[in-house]
Amino acid sequence: MRSVRFALVGLGNLGARFCEMLQDKRAQLGERYGLDLCLVAAADSRGAAYSPAGLDLAQVLALKRAGDSIANYPAFGRVGWGAVDLIAEVEADLLLEASPVNLDRNGEPGLSAVRTALQRGMHVVTPNKGPMVLAYQELHQLAADNGVELRFDGTVAGGLPAINLGQRDLRGAEIRLIEAVPNLVTGYVMDQLAAGLEWDTVLDQARDEGVLEADSSWDLDGWDAAAKLVILVNAVLGLPATLSDVARTGISGVQLSDLKAAKQKGGGYRLLARAEQQEDESYALSVEPSFLSEEHPLGRLGSKGMGVLYETDIYGTLTAIIHEPNPMPSATTMLRDLLDIYL
Amino acid sequence: MRSVRFALVGLGNLGARFCEMLQDKRAQLGERYGLDLCLVAAADSRGAAYSPAGLDLAQVLALKRAGDSIANYPAFGRVGWGAVDLIAEVEADLLLEASPVNLDRNGEPGLSAVRTALQRGMHVVTPNKGPMVLAYQELHQLAADNGVELRFDGTVAGGLPAINLGQRDLRGAEIRLIEAVPNLVTGYVMDQLAAGLEWDTVLDQARDEGVLEADSSWDLDGWDAAAKLVILVNAVLGLPATLSDVARTGISGVQLSDLKAAKQKGGGYRLLARAEQQEDESYALSVEPSFLSEEHPLGRLGSKGMGVLYETDIYGTLTAIIHEPNPMPSATTMLRDLLDIYL
Repeated sequence: MRSVRFALVGLGNLGARFCEMLQDKRAQLGERYGLDLCLVAAADSRGAAYSPAGLDLAQVLALKRAGDSIANYPAFGRVGWGAVDLIAEVEADLLLEASPVNLDRNGEPGLSAVRTALQRGMHVVTPNKGPMVLAYQELHQLAADNGVELRFDGTVAGGLPAINLGQRDLRGAEIRLIEAVPNLVTGYVMDQLAAGLEWDTVLDQARDEGVLEADSSWDLDGWDAAAKLVILVNAVLGLPATLSDVARTGISGVQLSDLKAAKQKGGGYRLLARAEQQEDESYALSVEPSFLSEEHPLGRLGSKGMGVLYETDIYGTLTAIIHEPNPMPSATTMLRDLLDIYL
Repeated sequence: MRSVRFALVGLGNLGARFCEMLQDKRAQLGERYGLDLCLVAAADSRGAAYSPAGLDLAQVLALKRAGDSIANYPAFGRVGWGAVDLIAEVEADLLLEASPVNLDRNGEPGLSAVRTALQRGMHVVTPNKGPMVLAYQELHQLAADNGVELRFDGTVAGGLPAINLGQRDLRGAEIRLIEAVPNLVTGYVMDQLAAGLEWDTVLDQARDEGVLEADSSWDLDGWDAAAKLVILVNAVLGLPATLSDVARTGISGVQLSDLKAAKQKGGGYRLLARAEQQEDESYALSVEPSFLSEEHPLGRLGSKGMGVLYETDIYGTLTAIIHEPNPMPSATTMLRDLLDIYL
């Protein structure tokens, strides 16, 4: 049995769900793959805890469920211990960086935590788009220089292995077109508007259901979809694209009459992210509310579906879609990435 | 630049297309991946050729286009040189085994060619279902014993990375259900019957278009779909299933009235392969003509589409579909597998 000591930054939606999943699966993963995944350190926004012998998952989850912080983990927790300082100090094989996207604050603390871990020779797995959008090329260089792996399959379209498909299964191909529906809430909002609900009602409803962040601009103005497109383009096409390369249109200007007409035709609107090869072989990058007919491979995703399509020269047109009844798949991409590093 | 010397058995639909693709892409693959893919030996049903310095792809293709055999390749060809003898003699890093499925003759010559290559320490890539269905466990053990890789992503659903998805991207998951539409011609036949054509007319048409083999039973009686299911179950679920474990129903008994009713409802019939987890955690394996509504993720594949669906505990429900306008993707899966071994 090989022990993998990992540190976890972020104990919100993704981090806590990962711990729940691991609690259920730890013994089985040991039997199946000969790996013992041992949480040795964790940080949330209020502090951190570190125990070289391992933290108890049940106790970590009990603290979070009680609305408390990991900082109050008995004996090993410390209030105010920042994620970056923790990672600079901890002895671990791998960092799971699951803090929230924070482009307003230059991707911190996620970006510095990732940088520090890579510099210290730790593998990094992260579903956090912030560091990948802001410093894709730098972080990959840093990983290569330190002989470690950096995985981020969860940054795009939740549990869908969109990056893995493009990077590994389409090797050798020219990719002529990428189309992706990588954001759930914009599709939900447009479906509800088409069904006759008012804009404000729909947004309130989405907030109540926890699918829309307090700062709704990130989703509704297409920043989230654009960030995912930038990561796909860097990872799959190998191009150093940034957010400013994306022609971005959010959903606030979409016409109600268009939404209703689309519904009548049997299709629907989705915030579609596209990278289309041009005659000069460059790619035009866009995020735009788009009508998808029923015939389109991404045209029937439903309210819990996301997808990606690759049009290629030698592998035909490949489409993958995921139905996520809850956010668990987005959290478990960290397991996919982690196992991919060690197996 | 690293040289990969490979031998190719089978110069039919898949083998010749692979050579065409390689002719186009060889220089680009060298630039992109630092690999020079060099064909050193090839065999068809009439003979073989071997040149340690490499065979010329253009010359190989010219022979095949003229209806001639590789046996007549200038200087290096030999009439009657069998594939297995060739592989026993050749100095190569890898075997691409692309001979036709031949379960009537115990999977030969493909099975012996694969066995010989593995025993001699060559990696093997094959889209040939025969060896995988007949000797999955034995061949994998042989590959492990000899420290080489055995890849077969092209055996299931053409260019769709169905096996890769299940083996790699769903690691750690319990797979509750696999559903696959892995055979094109049965869907085509049922669509044409639903559109009002007569059974014999449809079969003649399918033969004329080259999508139905002379021995139509392989496709129509569900053997092809069952073989693909057996490979999926071995590869993804890790269970030693064989053809006799599959409850198999072909399409000849399907009722015309059902096909027409399905069309009116907006869905259609497909020969569906299923592996469904039972209460005792075993899997029920079946191949059966099944109605797929428009709402089913595999319900709108069209006449050139194949797909696979995985229902899991922690990654949601993942579906991948491929649209293959021609058989090229089935041939290029060999490139996918080959690059996966070396990169």
